Amino acid sequence: LSGSFSVAALDGFPLVQPGDDIASLICDRLDAMNLTLQHHDVLVITSKIVSKAEGCVVNLSDVEPTDDALRYAKITGKDPRVVELVLRDSHAVSRAAKNVLVVEHRLGFVCANAGIDQSNVEGDDETVLLLPIDPDGTAASIHDVLRQRYDVEVGVIISDSHGRPFRLGTVGVAIGVAGMPGMLDLRGQTDLYGRELKISIQGYADLVASAAQLATGEGAEGRPVVLVRGLSFTRTDGNAAELNRPVQEDLYR
Amino acid sequence: LSGSFSVAALDGFPLVQPGDDIASLICDRLDAMNLTLQHHDVLVITSKIVSKAEGCVVNLSDVEPTDDALRYAKITGKDPRVVELVLRDSHAVSRAAKNVLVVEHRLGFVCANAGIDQSNVEGDDETVLLLPIDPDGTAASIHDVLRQRYDVEVGVIISDSHGRPFRLGTVGVAIGVAGMPGMLDLRGQTDLYGRELKISIQGYADLVASAAQLATGEGAEGRPVVLVRGLSFTRTDGNAAELNRPVQEDLYR
Repeated sequence: LSGSFSVAALDGFPLVQPGDDIASLICDRLDAMNLTLQHHDVLVITSKIVSKAEGCVVNLSDVEPTDDALRYAKITGKDPRVVELVLRDSHAVSRAAKNVLVVEHRLGFVCANAGIDQSNVEGDDETVLLLPIDPDGTAASIHDVLRQRYDVEVGVIISDSHGRPFRLGTVGVAIGVAGMPGMLDLRGQTDLYGRELKISIQGYADLVASAAQLATGEGAEGRPVVLVRGLSFTRTDGNAAELNRPVQEDLYR
Repeated sequence: LSGSFSVAALDGFPLVQPGDDIASLICDRLDAMNLTLQHHDVLVITSKIVSKAEGCVVNLSDVEPTDDALRYAKITGKDPRVVELVLRDSHAVSRAAKNVLVVEHRLGFVCANAGIDQSNVEGDDETVLLLPIDPDGTAASIHDVLRQRYDVEVGVIISDSHGRPFRLGTVGVAIGVAGMPGMLDLRGQTDLYGRELKISIQGYADLVASAAQLATGEGAEGRPVVLVRGLSFTRTDGNAAELNRPVQEDLYR
C-alpha cells in the first residue's frame, strides 16, 4: 500500500470555554493519551471551539437590526438579528432567496450565513457563535506552540463545513492553515507519458479538512480535534487565504 | 482515538486497457497483496481508469467542430475539437470565458471542460479521454462483484477532481457511488445541548473521494485505486446522482 495515512479524533476533548488555550488543551489530551506528535502530523481543529475560546458569542437580544438586515430578513425568512450579524461579518451579499443567504465573508471566502452557528452554544436559543476572528493567525499560533513542544514539523488546520453551489451536502474546508500547504501546486509535474498533469493545483488543506470531517462526526463537539498522520507534503508555509478565489477571477460570485 | 480510519493506495495497479474488467483487476491486486476486504471498506477508483476500460478515448483528428463549438473555442481560446467534445457531453454551458469552459455535464454535475482529460492517455497529443459512460452503474457492477467475492458490505466510489467556483484548487468528488451513502442526512440528530445540528446533510461520498485523493497523488495513474478502511456509514443504497443539486434549486448555475 502506498500514500498511506490515518485519520482519528482525539478522545475526551473538554468543553471549551472563553479564554481557553486550544494549544494547551491539545497538548493535555495528547499527554493523557500517551501520544506524541510525529513529523508531518496534521491537527484539524473545528472552528467552533476556536470561536468559543475567543468568546465569539453573541446574544441575539443585544442585536439591533439595520434596515438592510430587515430587508434581507424579509427575502430569506431568517431572524433579522441573525441577518444583521451575517451582514456585519461580510463584505457583500452573493445570493439572497427564501432560506438562503450566501455572502462573501470578511475572511475572503463565500459561504452561507457568514458561518454563523446557532447549535452547540451553551445558553439559550438566543445565543449564536460567529466564526473565529483570524483563523490563519490562530492556526499559526497553535502551530508554533506544537512545533516547539514536540520539535517536529506539524500542520494545523482550522476547519469549517461549507455547502457548494452545484452540489448538495456539505464538505470540509480549511479557514485557517499553518505549517503545511493551503494549495499544492503540481504544475510542471508530468504524468506517466511525460505530459503535463491535467489537474495542476490541489486544494490540499480542503482535502485534509474533508478527510477529518469523516472522523469528527457532524456537530459532535466531543470530537473537535482530529489527528491526521502519514501525509507527505512539501510546503510548510501555506495559509487558508490562498484558497480564496480572487473576486476578479470569479465568474459566479 | 475515535472515528479512526485509514487511507492507502493499492500498489502495482496495471495500466488499464480498453475492455479490462476493473473489478477483476482489483481482486487480482488484493490477492497479490494478501489483502481481503472487510466490512465497510470503500474502494475509491479514479474515473480515468474506468474511462480507459470502457474505451472512452477519442482521437481529435476524427472530430469535426460545429459552429457552436467554433464560437466557444473563440471565446475560450481552446481547441475547437475539444470544445466540440465538451458540448457533446453536456446539457448546457454554464460559463465561457478566456481559458474557462464550465458546463452542466450530461451526468448532471457542473464541471470544467466536461471532465475531458488530455493527459495520461497512451498515444499522441491528439488523444483525449472522456468521462465514463455511466459511473453510478459501473460502481454498482463493481460493488456487486466485490460483495459476492468477499462476502462483506463494501462501498465503491468512482472519483474525479473538480475545481470550485469560489475556491482555488481542485478537490475530489464522487461521480459514481454504490454500497454506501452519496449524501448522509443527519437531520433530526441533536448536538450536545439537545439542539438540531446546524449542518444536517453531508456530502459524504465527496468527503471520501477527497480523502482518497491525498493517497492517490494527482495524475499518478500508478495509484488509481485507494482503499479506505474503518469508516462507519449506515446507508448502503446511495449513488452519486443524489449529490447533484437540482437545477431549480441552484442560484448560481
